[in-house]
Amino acid sequence: MDMKSYTTQILNKVRQSAPLVHNITNFVVMNSSANILLAVGASPVMAHCIKEVEEMTSMANALVLNIGTLDEQWVESMIISAKAANLKNIPVILDPVGAGATKLRTEMTRKIIREAEVSVIRGNASEILSLFSDEVKTRGVDSSLSVNDSIIDAAQKIALETQCIIAISGRNDIITDGKRIFSVSNGQPIMTRVTGIGCGLTAVVGAFCAEAEGEFLLAVTAAHAFYGLCGELAHESGQGPGTFFIRFLDLLSSAGEKQIRDCLKVNQI
Amino acid sequence: MDMKSYTTQILNKVRQSAPLVHNITNFVVMNSSANILLAVGASPVMAHCIKEVEEMTSMANALVLNIGTLDEQWVESMIISAKAANLKNIPVILDPVGAGATKLRTEMTRKIIREAEVSVIRGNASEILSLFSDEVKTRGVDSSLSVNDSIIDAAQKIALETQCIIAISGRNDIITDGKRIFSVSNGQPIMTRVTGIGCGLTAVVGAFCAEAEGEFLLAVTAAHAFYGLCGELAHESGQGPGTFFIRFLDLLSSAGEKQIRDCLKVNQI
Amino acid sequence: MDMKSYTTQILNKVRQSAPLVHNITNFVVMNSSANILLAVGASPVMAHCIKEVEEMTSMANALVLNIGTLDEQWVESMIISAKAANLKNIPVILDPVGAGATKLRTEMTRKIIREAEVSVIRGNASEILSLFSDEVKTRGVDSSLSVNDSIIDAAQKIALETQCIIAISGRNDIITDGKRIFSVSNGQPIMTRVTGIGCGLTAVVGAFCAEAEGEFLLAVTAAHAFYGLCGELAHESGQGPGTFFIRFLDLLSSAGEKQIRDCLKVNQI
Repeated sequence: MDMKSYTTQILNKVRQSAPLVHNITNFVVMNSSANILLAVGASPVMAHCIKEVEEMTSMANALVLNIGTLDEQWVESMIISAKAANLKNIPVILDPVGAGATKLRTEMTRKIIREAEVSVIRGNASEILSLFSDEVKTRGVDSSLSVNDSIIDAAQKIALETQCIIAISGRNDIITDGKRIFSVSNGQPIMTRVTGIGCGLTAVVGAFCAEAEGEFLLAVTAAHAFYGLCGELAHESGQGPGTFFIRFLDLLSSAGEKQIRDCLKVNQI
Repeated sequence: MDMKSYTTQILNKVRQSAPLVHNITNFVVMNSSANILLAVGASPVMAHCIKEVEEMTSMANALVLNIGTLDEQWVESMIISAKAANLKNIPVILDPVGAGATKLRTEMTRKIIREAEVSVIRGNASEILSLFSDEVKTRGVDSSLSVNDSIIDAAQKIALETQCIIAISGRNDIITDGKRIFSVSNGQPIMTRVTGIGCGLTAVVGAFCAEAEGEFLLAVTAAHAFYGLCGELAHESGQGPGTFFIRFLDLLSSAGEKQIRDCLKVNQI
Repeated sequence: MDMKSYTTQILNKVRQSAPLVHNITNFVVMNSSANILLAVGASPVMAHCIKEVEEMTSMANALVLNIGTLDEQWVESMIISAKAANLKNIPVILDPVGAGATKLRTEMTRKIIREAEVSVIRGNASEILSLFSDEVKTRGVDSSLSVNDSIIDAAQKIALETQCIIAISGRNDIITDGKRIFSVSNGQPIMTRVTGIGCGLTAVVGAFCAEAEGEFLLAVTAAHAFYGLCGELAHESGQGPGTFFIRFLDLLSSAGEKQIRDCLKVNQI
């Protein structure tokens, strides 16, 4: 099956099943991630209290962890949830926001990866590379690196080493399980000028993986491509970041087979 | 006085007095609830620190408690605030988001109801019923039940037992004090596809009750109907959840007597 | 150089340099402040954990502190960050949201000012005055005072005493270093009907001060005027607070020399 048919199919599955996506995420994007998940057809829940996260994850179809406004107690909750997700065999998606910017973020992300099984790590180039090299620095939450061939090589090695799908966002997104590599060229620069767009993608990756029956590589690629093409279409009016985000939510909800057929840009490399 | 005149009157009172509504609410909706309260004409304040909540509630005209991203320390603050509200004789509105999904949420909500006087409990059917039956489960923050005759019976019993107004949101909203029952058929399904719409209604119930001089049943009903009709009008353009929410805020601010006269749908049953 | 040229110049510097603005701010506005900073061309980061704030501030170009949903532990983080900012000689902007409403807010704000060097304090009249007089009360987060001559006198005294730029928002904004006083009459009443607009201004003040090379008085004035004129232009369609905020973000991103030349209203008094 080609990626256009696959993307249409998994999007429709999400819309029919409305998978429950448990998010332990940062304060900045809780609202936007919930709206992005609702727009795409999933059912979001946010819960972080150590006394309820295991129970909440146990009724979910995917778990999304995001360290954007980290606190140590939240990391404990994340690890408990990730272990519950592992037991239930649901996907765990990790967004290491700002890893490489502070020791806390880098170390806590490494701790999560060490103590639980993560299915997918999605971030920008310096966030991802910083997890495996102390040399790489992130500027706040912005990448200090562009995606290029040596980044792709590194992503592949990291995927093999961690047994995770690695997804790096950039002008072209790179998604790899260490063996196969997909490149997605959908997307629009204005997506970096609205807060929470990257975090929202991580959440949508969670929703798609919930319906992927364990075949995460294609689901992660499909999520990136669909998300990126909604961004392209949302920017057509060109009115600025405020209007862009509103149109983007509308399109996440309305775009489907036709837009995927006309606009999806995925290559295996 | 009929409900159309009453709703117009209490809405105008809110706009003239700008009641101060103290919210202890969840992280996902703090921004949207504040904007919804401002749009309708009220003055929102968010404060949760145990060292200031009593003082903040003491200057407020209504208190809104929402357990959406619960933490035990926040429950302590909620109970202190609720007691301060009881002393000052201002309405206390409780939104048991996700009650029935985890033990923590169910138990903490029951604790609040036990330790302070709550004026109104507003939620979806399974959230409300779970407070009084361990059999009822909620899926994340989505109701597992639809509103039907047996739910209405249960709502009535709960209202009598707790001496609270019980408001259950659904295709038709049910509002009861245990003796009288109102049904509101305003509203639009897209309202369930935007995060924080239910929580925002709870906040608006707080603003209306602040101006109700203790007659909460009609005020709660009016809040539901006005909110629902703004939702209907906001959806007329049909562009999706992003555009919907923006138009909804515009209408909460601009709709008034004319829209209420043309669109309000309330029945006593 | 006149204020129109200066404002154009510093805005362009912000857009070229994308200063990293570290925000320790309240839950209600984290998303809107991040979007406002991105729209204006800056690079926001939010981080509050006591284990990472020093490191985060050390890579930033400005620090913005906002006590809107205060907690004592956050105040500790704020003071640590402010000291790191002082060491690095980057501007520290303080928004005393709700000071004068509760003892906690008033006292914690005074503590920050006492323990670290703050460059700019921005708030409404009663928030600012309450920091220096126990008589002044704030209603929730709304000012109980209007800007008038005695307020201007007070602002000047406070500026001299604290060695901070004092910026008071109102129908006309007043910005003073105790010697010179600027009045900005840009702005639009609807800006008080959307949550986080004041907090977003504080963040933009941070971005402008990051590019001011220590000349904060003019930078703070330029930030107020540019922000206010974007508000005026955003309200032209007159559709309500939802549409207003979206247009406002668009304009923060697109307005520039032409709009500044046509609309900036700054007077030295």
